[in-house]
Amino acid sequence: MLNDVPDKIKNIERIFYPQSIAVLGANNVKGTVPGDILTNILKAQFKGIVYPVNPRERHISSIKTYKYVIDIEDPVDLAVIVYPSSVMHMALEQCGQKGIKGAVIISAGFKEVGGQGIEREEQIKEIAHKFGISFIGPNCLGVINTDPAVMLDASFARKMPEEGNIGFISQSGALCTAVLDYARAKHIGFSKFVSIGNKADVSEVDLLYYLKDDPKTKVILLYLEEISDGLDLVKAAKTVIEKTGKPVLAIKSGRTHAGASAAASHTGSLAGSDETCDAAFKQAGIIRCDDIEEMFNKAIAFTYQPLPKGKRVAIITNAGGPGVLTTDASIRCGLELPKLKPETTEILKKSLPKTANINNPVDVIGDARADRYNVAVSSVLKDDNIDGVFIILTPQSMTEIESIAHEISRISSLFTKPIYTSFMGEADVAPGIDILQRNKIPHYILPESMPEAFAATYKFGKRLEEKPEPVEPFKDVDIEKANSILNEAIAHGKKYLPEEEAAKILEAYNFPLLKSGLATSPDEAVKISEELGYPLVMKIMSDDIVHKFDLGGVILDIKTKVEAFDAYNRIIDNVKKLKPDARIKGIYVRKMIPPGEEVILGLKRDPSFGPVIMFGLGGIFVEIYKDVSFRIAPLDNISVNKLITETKASEILSGARGRIPRDIKSLKECILRLSQLAVDCPQIKELDINPLIILEDGKGSFVADTKIML
Amino acid sequence: MLNDVPDKIKNIERIFYPQSIAVLGANNVKGTVPGDILTNILKAQFKGIVYPVNPRERHISSIKTYKYVIDIEDPVDLAVIVYPSSVMHMALEQCGQKGIKGAVIISAGFKEVGGQGIEREEQIKEIAHKFGISFIGPNCLGVINTDPAVMLDASFARKMPEEGNIGFISQSGALCTAVLDYARAKHIGFSKFVSIGNKADVSEVDLLYYLKDDPKTKVILLYLEEISDGLDLVKAAKTVIEKTGKPVLAIKSGRTHAGASAAASHTGSLAGSDETCDAAFKQAGIIRCDDIEEMFNKAIAFTYQPLPKGKRVAIITNAGGPGVLTTDASIRCGLELPKLKPETTEILKKSLPKTANINNPVDVIGDARADRYNVAVSSVLKDDNIDGVFIILTPQSMTEIESIAHEISRISSLFTKPIYTSFMGEADVAPGIDILQRNKIPHYILPESMPEAFAATYKFGKRLEEKPEPVEPFKDVDIEKANSILNEAIAHGKKYLPEEEAAKILEAYNFPLLKSGLATSPDEAVKISEELGYPLVMKIMSDDIVHKFDLGGVILDIKTKVEAFDAYNRIIDNVKKLKPDARIKGIYVRKMIPPGEEVILGLKRDPSFGPVIMFGLGGIFVEIYKDVSFRIAPLDNISVNKLITETKASEILSGARGRIPRDIKSLKECILRLSQLAVDCPQIKELDINPLIILEDGKGSFVADTKIML
Repeated sequence: MLNDVPDKIKNIERIFYPQSIAVLGANNVKGTVPGDILTNILKAQFKGIVYPVNPRERHISSIKTYKYVIDIEDPVDLAVIVYPSSVMHMALEQCGQKGIKGAVIISAGFKEVGGQGIEREEQIKEIAHKFGISFIGPNCLGVINTDPAVMLDASFARKMPEEGNIGFISQSGALCTAVLDYARAKHIGFSKFVSIGNKADVSEVDLLYYLKDDPKTKVILLYLEEISDGLDLVKAAKTVIEKTGKPVLAIKSGRTHAGASAAASHTGSLAGSDETCDAAFKQAGIIRCDDIEEMFNKAIAFTYQPLPKGKRVAIITNAGGPGVLTTDASIRCGLELPKLKPETTEILKKSLPKTANINNPVDVIGDARADRYNVAVSSVLKDDNIDGVFIILTPQSMTEIESIAHEISRISSLFTKPIYTSFMGEADVAPGIDILQRNKIPHYILPESMPEAFAATYKFGKRLEEKPEPVEPFKDVDIEKANSILNEAIAHGKKYLPEEEAAKILEAYNFPLLKSGLATSPDEAVKISEELGYPLVMKIMSDDIVHKFDLGGVILDIKTKVEAFDAYNRIIDNVKKLKPDARIKGIYVRKMIPPGEEVILGLKRDPSFGPVIMFGLGGIFVEIYKDVSFRIAPLDNISVNKLITETKASEILSGARGRIPRDIKSLKECILRLSQLAVDCPQIKELDINPLIILEDGKGSFVADTKIML
Repeated sequence: MLNDVPDKIKNIERIFYPQSIAVLGANNVKGTVPGDILTNILKAQFKGIVYPVNPRERHISSIKTYKYVIDIEDPVDLAVIVYPSSVMHMALEQCGQKGIKGAVIISAGFKEVGGQGIEREEQIKEIAHKFGISFIGPNCLGVINTDPAVMLDASFARKMPEEGNIGFISQSGALCTAVLDYARAKHIGFSKFVSIGNKADVSEVDLLYYLKDDPKTKVILLYLEEISDGLDLVKAAKTVIEKTGKPVLAIKSGRTHAGASAAASHTGSLAGSDETCDAAFKQAGIIRCDDIEEMFNKAIAFTYQPLPKGKRVAIITNAGGPGVLTTDASIRCGLELPKLKPETTEILKKSLPKTANINNPVDVIGDARADRYNVAVSSVLKDDNIDGVFIILTPQSMTEIESIAHEISRISSLFTKPIYTSFMGEADVAPGIDILQRNKIPHYILPESMPEAFAATYKFGKRLEEKPEPVEPFKDVDIEKANSILNEAIAHGKKYLPEEEAAKILEAYNFPLLKSGLATSPDEAVKISEELGYPLVMKIMSDDIVHKFDLGGVILDIKTKVEAFDAYNRIIDNVKKLKPDARIKGIYVRKMIPPGEEVILGLKRDPSFGPVIMFGLGGIFVEIYKDVSFRIAPLDNISVNKLITETKASEILSGARGRIPRDIKSLKECILRLSQLAVDCPQIKELDINPLIILEDGKGSFVADTKIML
């Protein structure tokens, strides 16, 4: 495997699978990081050799200790460094000299403290680069690999987690300790557990690529505080998901700080960094979670159980109330509770008491013992109408909590349909929950979490079936023209393009603009009118006139060439009478905008994710309801559809509620042209097409107004 | 106390505070309800005398057993009955003869099984009524009173809960067992714990009135599956909250089944039973919760800590990530994270390491021991800028989990500001959490739950300060006229009122209708026009003409009396020319509707809560976003404001985003008139005023169209 992969991935493999480790800076003071780190490696029973390194110690934890790493006579795969940041550069330099390619730098005192710390971090990056070292950290909790072939705990965590199939990558070390404690209590195991700290070298993106091919990892969890390169992250996650089917779940903190700053465009004010992150995650297929509980609720569904084949679920409960609450939650999550087949209800009728409910949700009644759960669970799992089962238990005095947990575990192994459980309560149900957790049956404190997790797995499965394809770029665009307009404006120090120039950019990208012309005589006005077709608007063009309407400088709804001729003269007369000194450039002739639905298309450049495309219905929809959606350009064939359908208002376009169906094909084309423009012309910082008027189905659309910020 | 309260409340007092109990139907078979119920009473060490009653036993649990309850020689306060439903009537009859006034009927087999069960339930209700007995149940888990003066566990729960200040009322017995188990593990105590089962006699409403005056109960929790009398519930809860300041929290299951059926009016389709319940709860001040965890998260905040004086919170954490997530959640919940005072940051600067964050959120850094938490918590609690503190802990290897928990508990007792905690993880943090829970410091698994609970207590406090006042009814309404129109229509079997009739109803209630008149000559048209004022619309009135516009039967924007005269003649000419055989009633003259914002007002009668008033902005707002709000009539002075401001679109009315400020005073008047009509005329089943046009501020509003269903 190690031959045809990039060096960084090879080095990461050395970090996770070392045959020998040097611990630089270890000491004998227990309860401190330098004291605990070696102890943890030993406690985990690492399947290789450990070399403590410390010029001031002869032995640490009874192991012979080397003054310097270069003194070690054997080859070393991994350096774990806990020296203070002030001497880190020397330690790393020696690692390089020793030929070590993988390192974990635990110590803090780098970028996160500012000032000199920033310099120190740059310094170690340089050294690492010089020697081709890849390192995790600095300022991190460390790295864990539960693979029995290695048993690596190069961290100062309290305890090593159980073995499992979850790969966990966290930017917060302190959160790691909470996660490990939380997971251990629930018997949730990990394959790899990485605290990436300042991610000065190895980032979450590198680790995604590494875990993609890690056979021990089936699900990847990310906790991120800032995303340095959003596009890389999206690409990596998309690759993992689409190539391997491994789900990627992520918490990204900082949700409410979005869009706070004032912005020049609608898109600018609406496309905050958090909305952009949301869009990018969706596009990549990353499942965004709000908190640790939600993340693990979903993660155990993914790791412990097969993906559901459909969204039809059955509920089995010994308590009516929670059954109703779970039914509610299932429907809210878009799941279905179908009728059971007659064969199934027949069995239930025979085996359950009269007072039981033999329909979905199945109520085995409060005094149910293991036998009733047994028959209900088995027969419902056999039912072809059902894709998954939610089991609820409340602890009545006769409830056989542990037997029921054992039975569920046994039955689960006989079927390939997902089974989730919720034993409600806490103290008395604890032994039952423990049995379920040890047997890898997803268990949830709240029964309502079951449909939420199930829906996540179902949607993920559906998404895997989608095959997003890049969209063929339009050939009828004039990239040079657009670039030259933009570059010239930038050369002149402009912060935004005047309306005419903005229109020229859209013209170069063949957006549907309302045709127009400038007439300087009545005859010319007629000529242009005949070319454009009616109805028309005429408008005085003069830099000296602001309120064109008030001066009689605008005439609407011109329908014939006679009217066009008259209108020209009338406008000139009006203006000459009311503002005789105005310098007149001519009269602007433009087709009237046919009635249609107004939408807004926008573009904003995000520092991390690049060009963001926004869509929404105009006016009130954007202003009051913020009913807009976002995707990162370039859009693929699926993103363009989702961009539209994600907004509530989009049903207006498709003709819902007695409205006229609009030309959605034309809308899509505009969106894709904007996506192409966004990629081709990075000079555009923000852009609003507001409104874009969508005509009746088959009749196209028109750009009515454009704003471009540079 | 027992002298000036109604009999039912006196009887409930006997149920909770009996000096003697008869257990009818008890036996010696352990593991069954009749076997366990007496055992539970004995195990709880009831501070009175228990008399087992069973004709087939001489002694149960070593206690002399009576054949019949009437055989007991001493007075009996409470009968707990576990006989089968088939003989329940006889048992209860004997209780009546014995003079027992309070009973708990545990047995199932009544209304919930249908058929004969319904009759049996009616039968016991009659007997109870005859003897003036109040009873809880049937089909319930029983009743618990933790008061050390009684120690009553008349239930078949597994274990008695700890003593505390929460009164819990549940319609689901099975859920009770889960709640007891959940609460015991968290050291959450209860004052009274009641499973109301079929609530054939004593209902949640009676218990609310009882708990209102129960000195042991500070917070009341309800779990309801169906609400028989919503209005009574609202009234009871409102009384409890406003008179005593005790918060009432409720789960009501069945959220998604709402509004499913097709309805004739907008209001009918939007005001589902769940939306109505939501509105009623808000109006009463009941805090609606989605699940048990949310309910107890909030309940412990209310019981353990004082109500916050404001919404300014500080976060103290040893982990940056969770600090950010909690900051996000705080802002989402409407809380503020103000700057700390210079005195506070000065102390923090002196006592915390350099790398610590001494601003809000305060980061004491991963390696913090108890001393750092100590100084941070104390100094921040002293800060006048801060109304409450959230403390987060993640378990690093050096974290002194238990000491920190002890310190927090100690410090909390010195301050009257709320302190909430979240020790993240599960296994290692468990001993710390246990210390917090025993010391009544609210603890939350997820740090994000802290702001949610805090915001609930803050809002509740704010609501207590509101003094909702009933609104003085309008005197200028003609209730007799409205009723006679409605009664006549009903007498004629009509299902809805024709437009003119509906308008007459609104006229009787003095809604702002567009004035109009019927003219049968040009002179009369002029006369009416002069009375109404201009501009006007004229419209042909004829049952034979459907498309009035097409025949030239409508003329808009009539501005003078000359125009009015001409318009009359023109319409008659047009119609006579194009449809000579049409029978003409005359010409309808109406004021033009001035431009304004369209809103919709509605009324629907809910079977449980009575008349529901709906408000929303018209058109798209209602159709796509369902941006409407509800309140139960009659509305008080505060409800009418909230009805409006609760919708997002209401900011349009107040002139946001450059819009014209509308006459909200007039809108409020219309809403209050509708509220009065709703109460006065129960014949109206549904009503839509759609649209009501709200003019510029100070210019009033107009009803443009009305629909009334009977």
